[in-house]
Amino acid sequence: MTTTTSPRELEHPERDQIRLEAVLHALADPVRLQIVWEMAREGVGLSCSYFDLPVTKSTTTHHFRVLREGGVIQQTYRGTAKLNSLRRDDLDALFPGLLDKVLTGVAAQAAREGGAI
Amino acid sequence: MTTTTSPRELEHPERDQIRLEAVLHALADPVRLQIVWEMAREGVGLSCSYFDLPVTKSTTTHHFRVLREGGVIQQTYRGTAKLNSLRRDDLDALFPGLLDKVLTGVAAQAAREGGAI
Repeated sequence: MTTTTSPRELEHPERDQIRLEAVLHALADPVRLQIVWEMAREGVGLSCSYFDLPVTKSTTTHHFRVLREGGVIQQTYRGTAKLNSLRRDDLDALFPGLLDKVLTGVAAQAAREGGAI
Repeated sequence: MTTTTSPRELEHPERDQIRLEAVLHALADPVRLQIVWEMAREGVGLSCSYFDLPVTKSTTTHHFRVLREGGVIQQTYRGTAKLNSLRRDDLDALFPGLLDKVLTGVAAQAAREGGAI
């Protein structure tokens, strides 16, 4: 396996192309909320395989694509792996406080249900 | 036309049945964001016909149903009309600050685009 950066690039919306309704759509799914929650907690670029999700690999890929196309995460290739990071600066600049309140809501909902996020 | 309250009742989730992902889904649409924005601004029960939306009547009905089923609004019959109110108390109790940040995001996005909400 190589660790050099691949020239392949995935399509991302520029900051000024990110739409509130697309961000909300990207977050409107329990698996995607779990992904975003873990990325916010870890705060570093994570590969897709880091996440222990209750869905198939292809569904996982779909969820990451929705998050990327909505402007919620940045995906970059590192060799054959994709590294994922939250676009926190972009989201905070466009929709101040929104991401934090969503994350608070995730934690509150998990606490009410006595389960893991 | 009568102004008596009809015994018909529309189905709403109880507070503890409202899910974050369903709220986000209900908000993940520009028309529904416009509806919620206007309801937050007016702060009183509004009939569906109050809203000047760029969609057909049946699509409007669909949007209100998605908002109701997601737990974002309360719909009650007054005669043949439905009156709509934001479930602000429920949402603020479950997901503190989320609705306000979404509304802030709506205003910020409209301001950036120089257009109406």
